[in-house]
Amino acid sequence: MSLTSLKQQVLDANLALPQHNLVTFTWGNVSAIDRASGRVAIKPSGVDYKGMTLNDIVVVDLETGRVVEGSKKPSSDTATHLALYRAFETIGGIVHTHSRHATIWAQSGLDLPAWGTTHADYFYGKVPCTRLMTPQEIAENYEYNTGEVIIETFRSRNINPAAVPAVLVNAHGPFAWGSSADNAVHNAVVLEEVAYMGIFSRQLTPGISDMQQVLLDKHYLRKHGANAYYGQ
Amino acid sequence: MSLTSLKQQVLDANLALPQHNLVTFTWGNVSAIDRASGRVAIKPSGVDYKGMTLNDIVVVDLETGRVVEGSKKPSSDTATHLALYRAFETIGGIVHTHSRHATIWAQSGLDLPAWGTTHADYFYGKVPCTRLMTPQEIAENYEYNTGEVIIETFRSRNINPAAVPAVLVNAHGPFAWGSSADNAVHNAVVLEEVAYMGIFSRQLTPGISDMQQVLLDKHYLRKHGANAYYGQ
Amino acid sequence: MSLTSLKQQVLDANLALPQHNLVTFTWGNVSAIDRASGRVAIKPSGVDYKGMTLNDIVVVDLETGRVVEGSKKPSSDTATHLALYRAFETIGGIVHTHSRHATIWAQSGLDLPAWGTTHADYFYGKVPCTRLMTPQEIAENYEYNTGEVIIETFRSRNINPAAVPAVLVNAHGPFAWGSSADNAVHNAVVLEEVAYMGIFSRQLTPGISDMQQVLLDKHYLRKHGANAYYGQ
Amino acid sequence: MSLTSLKQQVLDANLALPQHNLVTFTWGNVSAIDRASGRVAIKPSGVDYKGMTLNDIVVVDLETGRVVEGSKKPSSDTATHLALYRAFETIGGIVHTHSRHATIWAQSGLDLPAWGTTHADYFYGKVPCTRLMTPQEIAENYEYNTGEVIIETFRSRNINPAAVPAVLVNAHGPFAWGSSADNAVHNAVVLEEVAYMGIFSRQLTPGISDMQQVLLDKHYLRKHGANAYYGQ
Repeated sequence: MSLTSLKQQVLDANLALPQHNLVTFTWGNVSAIDRASGRVAIKPSGVDYKGMTLNDIVVVDLETGRVVEGSKKPSSDTATHLALYRAFETIGGIVHTHSRHATIWAQSGLDLPAWGTTHADYFYGKVPCTRLMTPQEIAENYEYNTGEVIIETFRSRNINPAAVPAVLVNAHGPFAWGSSADNAVHNAVVLEEVAYMGIFSRQLTPGISDMQQVLLDKHYLRKHGANAYYGQ
Repeated sequence: MSLTSLKQQVLDANLALPQHNLVTFTWGNVSAIDRASGRVAIKPSGVDYKGMTLNDIVVVDLETGRVVEGSKKPSSDTATHLALYRAFETIGGIVHTHSRHATIWAQSGLDLPAWGTTHADYFYGKVPCTRLMTPQEIAENYEYNTGEVIIETFRSRNINPAAVPAVLVNAHGPFAWGSSADNAVHNAVVLEEVAYMGIFSRQLTPGISDMQQVLLDKHYLRKHGANAYYGQ
Repeated sequence: MSLTSLKQQVLDANLALPQHNLVTFTWGNVSAIDRASGRVAIKPSGVDYKGMTLNDIVVVDLETGRVVEGSKKPSSDTATHLALYRAFETIGGIVHTHSRHATIWAQSGLDLPAWGTTHADYFYGKVPCTRLMTPQEIAENYEYNTGEVIIETFRSRNINPAAVPAVLVNAHGPFAWGSSADNAVHNAVVLEEVAYMGIFSRQLTPGISDMQQVLLDKHYLRKHGANAYYGQ
Repeated sequence: MSLTSLKQQVLDANLALPQHNLVTFTWGNVSAIDRASGRVAIKPSGVDYKGMTLNDIVVVDLETGRVVEGSKKPSSDTATHLALYRAFETIGGIVHTHSRHATIWAQSGLDLPAWGTTHADYFYGKVPCTRLMTPQEIAENYEYNTGEVIIETFRSRNINPAAVPAVLVNAHGPFAWGSSADNAVHNAVVLEEVAYMGIFSRQLTPGISDMQQVLLDKHYLRKHGANAYYGQ
């Protein structure tokens, strides 16, 4: 993939965030990776979506984090994105937002359980919430450590990031990912939707139990994997 | 009715879903039936509403489910629609969505009671929630069995599907129906509205009792049946 | 005032309802009265706001309810409007909606207390919820009796309808009124706003007490009455 | 700064309120100060945002409150703004709204705690709610005393208004401020956003504890102060 094409995808995906009501002001960022060249394109830090152009998109090196193209500073969350790309080798795009309802779950420090087929169609089980970070993790290399604690969450709980393409960072907000920048945004929209539904499902039925595993399997697998039969 | 006219109604009704904020992405489908010819027109599977045209609409046979017109795969929920058309002989259109608040009730596994005249104007009693499906029902012919469990709900609880034109499928979401595709969408909008109101009525008054039967009768019957006097 | 002018005000006020997100479909109606001639202009029953014109507005006689101008049937709630105009002699316009949050309070059968200055700026004390109607009141002259039970609520609780220009009809929804059709719609918007805030104020502070009477006085009286000093 | 430039900033900031969905009707006002000349520009009282022009903006004297430019009456809340400008010497703009969720917290009489990094990015600790005002404070010089009780809240609780640029006025609603009128509106938007999230974070986790102080420090200080590294 050409860098220009990568940057265009990242620009388009960033511009999709306000269209999906996932961001207020500049509170979000999307990146994408070209695995062949080890290049990651990402939103610049603190720049308005309105008027953002291809020239604003910054390209950094996957391993070193150094800027290889672009005159702006990359998103302050760049180190988190890079940590995730290095650990989760199948993903092609990452999005971070403070979307309202996913952030509410994150602020509450709670996993978002699978309570219905809307969730099961995209997330094969609960969307985990990370543990609190230690004072050391916060004080030094905070953004990198945010990535590390996400990775620890998936590894220690044996969750496949390709099957559960999102996380809630404790007291912070959601990250979602996918095969591409566009697919990551798609998953971020779904996360926000099921986060909303989850708040009120739990209000209607305190102590609500997880959905049936067989129904979770059925819905996830009719859209994903070798035997998927949803879509054209 | 000509097939073209049937398809046009189905196209229009599908395009009305995002206008009424009932769907995210492609999460919804509307069908309509021509009883005379036994033909059912339905949305194609996983196709965007944006840019959808008459040629995308698929026509299937009521009894066999075979595609008789159209080059696309019909909605993955087609078997549910067909089961409902066969069992509920007075209905002309069906809509399935994951609209937020109806889905919240479905995820909570609760019937939506009649708590006010907004509900009574359209639904003659509570909108039922189906029982959980068995592992067998989920594993094989899932979509067909979804229809069967809806039908069982109405028959075992002696509910008239013409008077209560919607259902909440447990852990899934709502189906609504009506005399036509357009009327089904109308009922889906109302369901979403009363589902929203119901969540917060229950929050304000935990243990809220059903509305008076006489008031339910009055409102339902002033809009429906031989003595209706609402409208022109 | 000419009938044409009265009808134009009623048309404009009805068209304002969807702009303020107070109505779904045709679920609302606004009327206005010309006290000099005893004529009331009102929305026709079950007619879409979209495409509504001056010719659709119906004029009825205050005392008899008979249509004196217009070829359509007046709103099915006309008898309620007329009862209110006869009892509340200072009001010039009435609006009925099923706006979401006011309806939630009505469905819960609860008065909406004054919990903040937003409320106090428009409603001089709680917005009352009517008692349940009797089977007889519902069976015969239902719409007229809806007006009667509203009037009873204000009289028995000694509430001045000019100072509290709205009511919640139990298990139904809100009516609001004002000096004109436009002012009635204004009050309906405010009612919806404070109804929304009230739901969540009560969630944050169960058992929340009414606002201070002195603050209620201050805010109501700085906008209303002889010593008002808000506005130009 | 020229008065025209000051007025233009105030006009722009007032017009931004409805765009950010912070106001219903005329329920909000923004002002800005030119410290050099001691002039404060502010919205006129009870005037619609629609059609507001530079000529509608009123200029008053910081010390006396007297109108020095403009033919309209200044906002009825002008005395509150002036009290804040006199006490909080670093601020350049102030906004008052009845935005829904901040008002809900104000009506509940509760501080809005820091429960996540969205809050920490803008407010260095909880947004305080003022004490109830006394009957005397309400009866005389109410608007001026509203400012006094805000100032008392910050001083008695030792909160730096530059680091926590907003307050919840008990039973009333929010004021926010900032380096300019535009920045004050920005903070008002953020306040509304975290107020929304806070309502439901508290619902999900009753008794939720404040976020970690180290995380609050980290996020506030990466956007503010000498070592900030967010943005370009």
